[in-house]
Amino acid sequence: MGQKCSHSRIIAALDCDNAVEVAEKIGNYVRAFKVNYPLVLKKGLKVIGEISKFGEVIADFKIADVPHISSQIAECAFESGARGVIVHAFVGSDTLREVVRVAERFEGDVYAVVELSSEGGREFMSGVAEKLAKVAKEAGCRGIVAPATRVERITRLRKVAGDMIIISPGVGAQGGDACEALKAGADFIIVGRSIYTGDPVKSVVSLLERIKQEGLDGQ
Amino acid sequence: MGQKCSHSRIIAALDCDNAVEVAEKIGNYVRAFKVNYPLVLKKGLKVIGEISKFGEVIADFKIADVPHISSQIAECAFESGARGVIVHAFVGSDTLREVVRVAERFEGDVYAVVELSSEGGREFMSGVAEKLAKVAKEAGCRGIVAPATRVERITRLRKVAGDMIIISPGVGAQGGDACEALKAGADFIIVGRSIYTGDPVKSVVSLLERIKQEGLDGQ
Repeated sequence: MGQKCSHSRIIAALDCDNAVEVAEKIGNYVRAFKVNYPLVLKKGLKVIGEISKFGEVIADFKIADVPHISSQIAECAFESGARGVIVHAFVGSDTLREVVRVAERFEGDVYAVVELSSEGGREFMSGVAEKLAKVAKEAGCRGIVAPATRVERITRLRKVAGDMIIISPGVGAQGGDACEALKAGADFIIVGRSIYTGDPVKSVVSLLERIKQEGLDGQ
Repeated sequence: MGQKCSHSRIIAALDCDNAVEVAEKIGNYVRAFKVNYPLVLKKGLKVIGEISKFGEVIADFKIADVPHISSQIAECAFESGARGVIVHAFVGSDTLREVVRVAERFEGDVYAVVELSSEGGREFMSGVAEKLAKVAKEAGCRGIVAPATRVERITRLRKVAGDMIIISPGVGAQGGDACEALKAGADFIIVGRSIYTGDPVKSVVSLLERIKQEGLDGQ
């Protein structure tokens, strides 16, 4: 967790080859890091441990397999130092429960995707996203993943999510606006390309300032 | 592809730590190997290349991310020697198209999951599985993944799938029957634990014989 900004509402998606370097630079300004498969497949699971030196890591593996495979994937993530994993709710409550069971052994968190931020997320997920959030809650997930690209969806999902954490990807390069997503009910926004493709510190500080100016920094 | 049994309708799921060893033993008896994340995360992407010495590899990554991440995951698989990847259709047609586009560069195949073989597959996938198969077909997927645990679903999905290949997991440990799945319309059955937990050659030869006895060996 950041020291300068423990109240930061930014989760940095490190979908870049120099992920560890970026993590070291911005660790003090973000709430957590999100890593996903292209990075982990290229660098190995050890990259999770390396990044976790600079902040909490959420393994965005979008786990979507049958229960006995999904639980093994979650184990790989937590054993490597992740504090959270992301799973798809669409695959059903048995998988969700298994992944939550693994997370509990590691005192980790599970976040369930209920609707992807991409256009395709509208096709089969939007229509059942509220139901997915309900199933995720019942299974013991700590939070849900909802699209900052469609903030009206965050508002609707917040009603079902209750006190679950909502984390929202799609800010920046995908078109979503950080402040709009937070206003709509997201607890944390996930920002990737617009941080790591420029000057990471400058980008993240600038974003933090804007969030503060809008009175959304939670202080 | 196997030499002794090029007509084999078995795809071996190598969800075991000694995957390369098992692959070497049974390569001549199966149509392809299926590997998934727990193995690849533990052994590294290079395990795909090692297994591919003994037969074609399908990377069962159940890709379920936004398009620009999904395409990177597919690239990792194909660059490592996979001949096919498995993607989830419920994430929408944009992701499917992106993964197919990557596969085409490698002359590889894409198989789309339309319904998981686990119980949770009934909750949100069964009801839209036919639509998912249609979307997968339109996106250019080579085949779909449909549950051998519910053979009546294979029969229904075959009607939508047309000439797409149907591969069916859930045979053996999960309760599905190989011959029933083939009769229902699957082209290939995916068998994991019931092969690698015993004597792999004995198990796979025994299964091949049973398929032949039932006249389902496609010869």
